[in-house]
Amino acid sequence: KINPDRLWDSLMQMAKIGPGVAGGNNRQTLTDEDAEGRALFQGWCEAAGCTMGLDQMGNMFARREGTDPDALPVYVGSHLDTQPTGGKYDGVLGVLGGLEIIRTLNDLGIKTKHPIVVTNFTNEEGTRFAPAMLSSGVFAGIHTQDWAYAKTDAKGATFGEELKRIGWRGEEEVGARRMHAFFELHIEQGPILEAEGKQIGVVTHGQGLSWTQVTITGKDSHTGSTPMPMRKNAGLGMARVLEKVDEIAWSHAPHAVGAAGHIDVYPNSRNVIPGKVVFTVDFRSPELSVIEDMEAQLRTEGQKIADDMGLGIEFEKVGGFDPVAFDEGCVTAVRNAAERLGYSHMNLISGAGHDACWINRVAPTAMVMCPCVDGLSHNEAEEISKDWAMAGADVLMHAVVETAEI
Amino acid sequence: KINPDRLWDSLMQMAKIGPGVAGGNNRQTLTDEDAEGRALFQGWCEAAGCTMGLDQMGNMFARREGTDPDALPVYVGSHLDTQPTGGKYDGVLGVLGGLEIIRTLNDLGIKTKHPIVVTNFTNEEGTRFAPAMLSSGVFAGIHTQDWAYAKTDAKGATFGEELKRIGWRGEEEVGARRMHAFFELHIEQGPILEAEGKQIGVVTHGQGLSWTQVTITGKDSHTGSTPMPMRKNAGLGMARVLEKVDEIAWSHAPHAVGAAGHIDVYPNSRNVIPGKVVFTVDFRSPELSVIEDMEAQLRTEGQKIADDMGLGIEFEKVGGFDPVAFDEGCVTAVRNAAERLGYSHMNLISGAGHDACWINRVAPTAMVMCPCVDGLSHNEAEEISKDWAMAGADVLMHAVVETAEI
Ligand SMILES: NC(=O)NCCC(=O)O
Ligand SMILES: NC(=O)NCCC(=O)O
Repeated sequence: KINPDRLWDSLMQMAKIGPGVAGGNNRQTLTDEDAEGRALFQGWCEAAGCTMGLDQMGNMFARREGTDPDALPVYVGSHLDTQPTGGKYDGVLGVLGGLEIIRTLNDLGIKTKHPIVVTNFTNEEGTRFAPAMLSSGVFAGIHTQDWAYAKTDAKGATFGEELKRIGWRGEEEVGARRMHAFFELHIEQGPILEAEGKQIGVVTHGQGLSWTQVTITGKDSHTGSTPMPMRKNAGLGMARVLEKVDEIAWSHAPHAVGAAGHIDVYPNSRNVIPGKVVFTVDFRSPELSVIEDMEAQLRTEGQKIADDMGLGIEFEKVGGFDPVAFDEGCVTAVRNAAERLGYSHMNLISGAGHDACWINRVAPTAMVMCPCVDGLSHNEAEEISKDWAMAGADVLMHAVVETAEI
Repeated sequence: KINPDRLWDSLMQMAKIGPGVAGGNNRQTLTDEDAEGRALFQGWCEAAGCTMGLDQMGNMFARREGTDPDALPVYVGSHLDTQPTGGKYDGVLGVLGGLEIIRTLNDLGIKTKHPIVVTNFTNEEGTRFAPAMLSSGVFAGIHTQDWAYAKTDAKGATFGEELKRIGWRGEEEVGARRMHAFFELHIEQGPILEAEGKQIGVVTHGQGLSWTQVTITGKDSHTGSTPMPMRKNAGLGMARVLEKVDEIAWSHAPHAVGAAGHIDVYPNSRNVIPGKVVFTVDFRSPELSVIEDMEAQLRTEGQKIADDMGLGIEFEKVGGFDPVAFDEGCVTAVRNAAERLGYSHMNLISGAGHDACWINRVAPTAMVMCPCVDGLSHNEAEEISKDWAMAGADVLMHAVVETAEI
């Protein structure tokens, strides 16, 4: 069993870097705070005897040697970056849970046949640079590195420049590593485990995601002197599309969700009718056909709304991934571990996207989930108990060690 | 008659300061560009023999002496600040039209009994610091100076600090001046004059305005893993309120308008359900009771929407003024001038707010309007013809000179 106090203490120390305004974190990818968090993690890994690797996407790899020089490593990890108003556990638990495995194996003097590598993937959240899971996506060959480097944040800085600026661009070719298996521990970010009273979610599938960026074009004009019939109000068009997004998601319930989290209004002046609104619609479902359906409906219904109002509308797919079925062997290893350790568990479909969803394309992969209070995540108030963290890390360790073989 | 080429040339020179991105201007109040525009105007005024005054709100006063030392001055002017994506004429025409009067009277060697003072009022637009017409409002005793100084922009800088920073905070007590009359020339910013084929609008009234800032509070949470029934989506609440604002305005047509130009979404991340949206609803009508009605409906209907969705909602009045009836004597002077000069004209109700609306509280006031292409304003593509500018400035001069007496 892992040491829950040590794990918790590391979580709390990491949370001091890039504090939020309400008890959570703002440690967005490729900021100075991200660099500071990486340095703290690296120091801990080196103290635990690991050798460090760093690839050209800034993905970090802390390796504990195995006994068989020919055996591929078992990878474990997640991400240290957070939302702008994010929690202390989303991603971090998976990285520091991986480190805790190594510390525990060191304490117990246990050697595994396969090396174990703890990974921190760059820009999982996708807030500053869309899409989410950018660097695990490049690792898995989904995106090219050049495409990722060219991604810009709201201020126009590119991913490539920012990665170099914070000093965490490595030399290693991205995706060159072969993995024996990959395991990711993550908080559920939803309410199911807590509602069902289970300690462990055995993640069998991940739902798919589609991000469509919608640009509605109207005409800037004066809010006072432009008669109602002459207005081309892009803000009102956006409102009608948002209402439609909600309708579309509900019409596919219960296996679909939809919303827009990102909305920018131009010129954003109280007495100017918005001439342009750019927003991103997030649709998800465990079924690919449902996602495709919702996306198509958005385009058709959005076009209709715009046409009725004399507005322009454009749709651009800016991110997404298909629903995922995780590797049966790895999933079984997770379920067996929970069973062996006596933790209550259930199968789960991940509502969120995770680095594991991309890594599953190139290596046998599975995820372990633990509950979070009220299912709340992407919120500074995100919370878990030390017991939940412990159960999750224990199951992670047993699944990893079983796969890495003693 | 004024010199249209000289007036046009000055308009074009001013437009070089704080250029926009699409042929218009971004010379927002209390920016470095505002300071540069002020300096250019002051240089021109001094070259025309004026003595300059500057009050503690940064309002500028360029005075041409009259022949009677006891006569109160006739004031004329508008504002040099622009919207973030504004035009070259909104406000600027009224200030430089005033300067053109002085230049023309100088050319003709005409002396008036009353002095003539050309004024540039600070922060008419109200984009950077709400409300609009802030400094003419302090001049007219509507707002206190301390209240105005404490207004903050989106970055938290205060009006008072910024006014000092750009070097245009004067010593003169605000509102200490007495005016014999005030005249403001302005582009219509609406489509009526062009549609009716009239060169001059004789502005008899100004419609009233109400700005209500609405804050909707939901709960930041994950767009993927939060089930639809558990969401508290402040963005969707905003969409429903915007739809209602449009309905409310239409239900009072044709003498009412309504829209929201300012919308800020928090935390504005693609995969976070908005936990908070702040936006400002702009309602206008020539009838006070209609404005009050619309405001009350917004609060009632907005509250209902929020209650239905489990959202919080708060309303704050952040700006506004009652409908205005301009001074009969001054209005007649404008109409007589148009008649005398042979320009086609019609009575008009101003759709926009103007410094004249506040100054009307403390001095006999009227406005002259000229058409603008397609009624378009608060848009970089705002356009007028040199002939329209000339007709407006001619009428302004004749009304001013008649009132200032030769
Ligand atoms: N786990 C998580 O929040 N990932 C971000 C990508 C997503 O939006 O699902
Ligand atoms: N004229 C003008 O655009 N004034 C700004 C105040 C308003 O919104 O009416």
